[in-house]
Amino acid sequence: MAEKNEDNTIFIGGKPFMNYVTGVVMQFTTKGSKEVKIKARGKFISRAVDVEQVSKNKFLKEHAVQTKEIKTASEEFENKEGKKVNVSTIEIILTK
Amino acid sequence: MAEKNEDNTIFIGGKPFMNYVTGVVMQFTTKGSKEVKIKARGKFISRAVDVEQVSKNKFLKEHAVQTKEIKTASEEFENKEGKKVNVSTIEIILTK
Repeated sequence: MAEKNEDNTIFIGGKPFMNYVTGVVMQFTTKGSKEVKIKARGKFISRAVDVEQVSKNKFLKEHAVQTKEIKTASEEFENKEGKKVNVSTIEIILTK
Repeated sequence: MAEKNEDNTIFIGGKPFMNYVTGVVMQFTTKGSKEVKIKARGKFISRAVDVEQVSKNKFLKEHAVQTKEIKTASEEFENKEGKKVNVSTIEIILTK
């Protein structure tokens, strides 16, 4: 299953795609959440949008799930060489 | 230079990263636009967010450029085998 913390957030990484979709869908169905956050960094941002689209349009169509807000930002971190590098982030908030 | 059409839209693809950043920056500076759209599909979505972040935070800091809206969607197309495939899209609207 996809990683997630207590506040209904799904972090997108390199696991099988459907793990993340299932994670989002279950939050809205089995767990009864009203809001789910999909977060990703760097190259996984494209995947986060895929997870949002597939969850919303294919699996949650009858649950009237909407995209409430999409936020982007940058995070600074130090790479192996000790150089400061920026990575882009995305946060997609789905609500029903 | 990055591809763009008449209405201040920059389409993100596989050209060198700085081409796109320069495209966005020039729209706001040399061309005096008040609004620029950054669009991408599929794997280039991550890159579109990088272009947005770098343009806004590094090159347009003194121009008070803000992210006005971010929209995601899906487009259906037929692949080489004639099978219908969905691709995710993003549109990032910057304003000053």
